[in-house]
Amino acid sequence: MSQVSIRDDEVDIVIAAIEPDLTSFLEEWRAIFSRFHLIIIKDPDVKGELKIPGGFNYDTYTKADIQQIIGPSNAATFSGYSCRYFGYLLSKKKYIISIDDDCIPAKDTKGIQVDAISQHINNLSTPATPFFFNTLYDPFCKGADFVRGYPFSLRSGVSCALSCGLWLNLADLDAPTQALKPELRNTRYVDAVLTVPARAMMPLSGINIAFDRELVGPALLPSFKLAKEGKFRWETVEDVWTGMCVKVVCDHLGYGVKTGLPYVWRKERGDAIESLKKEWEGVKLMEEVVPFFQSMKLTPAAKTAEDCVIEIAAAVKEQLGRIDPVFTRAADSMVEWVQLWKTVKTRT
Amino acid sequence: MSQVSIRDDEVDIVIAAIEPDLTSFLEEWRAIFSRFHLIIIKDPDVKGELKIPGGFNYDTYTKADIQQIIGPSNAATFSGYSCRYFGYLLSKKKYIISIDDDCIPAKDTKGIQVDAISQHINNLSTPATPFFFNTLYDPFCKGADFVRGYPFSLRSGVSCALSCGLWLNLADLDAPTQALKPELRNTRYVDAVLTVPARAMMPLSGINIAFDRELVGPALLPSFKLAKEGKFRWETVEDVWTGMCVKVVCDHLGYGVKTGLPYVWRKERGDAIESLKKEWEGVKLMEEVVPFFQSMKLTPAAKTAEDCVIEIAAAVKEQLGRIDPVFTRAADSMVEWVQLWKTVKTRT
Repeated sequence: MSQVSIRDDEVDIVIAAIEPDLTSFLEEWRAIFSRFHLIIIKDPDVKGELKIPGGFNYDTYTKADIQQIIGPSNAATFSGYSCRYFGYLLSKKKYIISIDDDCIPAKDTKGIQVDAISQHINNLSTPATPFFFNTLYDPFCKGADFVRGYPFSLRSGVSCALSCGLWLNLADLDAPTQALKPELRNTRYVDAVLTVPARAMMPLSGINIAFDRELVGPALLPSFKLAKEGKFRWETVEDVWTGMCVKVVCDHLGYGVKTGLPYVWRKERGDAIESLKKEWEGVKLMEEVVPFFQSMKLTPAAKTAEDCVIEIAAAVKEQLGRIDPVFTRAADSMVEWVQLWKTVKTRT
Repeated sequence: MSQVSIRDDEVDIVIAAIEPDLTSFLEEWRAIFSRFHLIIIKDPDVKGELKIPGGFNYDTYTKADIQQIIGPSNAATFSGYSCRYFGYLLSKKKYIISIDDDCIPAKDTKGIQVDAISQHINNLSTPATPFFFNTLYDPFCKGADFVRGYPFSLRSGVSCALSCGLWLNLADLDAPTQALKPELRNTRYVDAVLTVPARAMMPLSGINIAFDRELVGPALLPSFKLAKEGKFRWETVEDVWTGMCVKVVCDHLGYGVKTGLPYVWRKERGDAIESLKKEWEGVKLMEEVVPFFQSMKLTPAAKTAEDCVIEIAAAVKEQLGRIDPVFTRAADSMVEWVQLWKTVKTRT
């Protein structure tokens, strides 16, 4: 695996419109986004016309489009933050980048605005090194290299399939932590990218990510919906679930996952104490979910991301289904998603 | 596991004197080291009197002391960088910190001098989290916490047994990389500490480390000597080998390994191209060493670091011994070291 070069027209930026007015969001990102094609999906539960300023190259999709393309029965899958997955489904580009609409560009330690898109592209276009941890972080970053003792046979690395960015200001905490520490803000800018080692699981956040759709697109899926979740990230764990699916798929197929740069600046939204009243069940369910994914072993028959997802779904149903019906529904959604992925791919 | 507090008199700073004159080294570190007890071991191959400025609390050991305590047959084990292991053996403190004598205090991004000792102590006194990767790095650092999705049952963490610090300026590269990129310097100050996930191996560097001697002391061992290595780090892989031993022991016994802060500033020393002429064999041997440690599984009978080292030594002899005699010698040294550790412990 050597460095690849990525053209602007190989990238879709997918935006989930949780609020209909994207004016201030897109103005903040204008200098960074305007070279790229945007796919904007309007949360089907949201009322009001989408407002998008001029000068962007984009396609928008609303509830009507979702229903037309996939039929009314599936529409619920794409509500709230999950509407972005509809964009993942329709994209024909090799790379997808997705950033929440309550985030604006961050500044680095020198006060310079971070170009999150070019940093994600850099992460995806250079190899990942999941089989041995490099203590000086990503050896493909400028000025870095492999540390003494790093086996030469592993230095070519593997394709990076997923790049997980981070957040300054409002960190991505769960509702209990956010409610307990209302003043806590993330101010630490860590100037590093690293490959998450093979077989280690991590909590993916869908707030600020990029991935290679051709390699792992079908594993970036909506499926794990909590009964009482709302429109705040801290009420959801769907993306955390998705992240563990992708990580298992990457470990099995020999791709890498990077985390670290780029940062985005997350603005305040919502009331964590209000969220706590919903008897948020995500905390409890993670106790089952994490050991499940940590011990998940796919068979050699799983040769594509689609195959892997189907195997994971079967294991979810069998091993987790008896614990809580949310898992059975997740397994069914995963199978349905792969079918949808194949249908859309054939149709277009 | 909750945060522990570490007293100054629970710490030994072990210094390997590769050059006899430690004046400028210790003057640079005076403000940071002077509260602690130092153990200074003079490389038995080095000529000339040790020079140590006043105002430090220290004990020194030379070739004569080594021979007296362990007998002449073992003295060769403690030559060059390995002489520090004699300090590990004699220390009676719970924590050991060791920094190479060509390193001086680094400065952080704000230009403030880094107190490497207090940062190492901080790493060792707060829990490690090897069983799930936290994307915002060490959750026990000031201002940090666990990210959404992190299982609550894993948030108490485990004891941190080893803290691996990093280097600015001259990075810890191997001789071929250093020779190929003579201008390469590490200038990136990454303001982070992280736990290396369980089962992931990394290239430990002995340049700047701290560990809990009571938990893993016997695994911090001298044993893997290349035939033609000299007095430059890039000619050695002994510490890399040691690091994988400790990591396997930590994974087995349920302790954590942290890497990242603190940085030290490494000064220039040696000529990498000259080193290359020695047909440096470390690069080649790592191709066997890394897969060996990655697949190493200890038995439930191994309940202490000593037990673990004996099991690893037996596997080294059996699985690697036939590849190269250096491995057989390493296995013998490991067994000898554990015997020495037990003897010294009983005697004192």
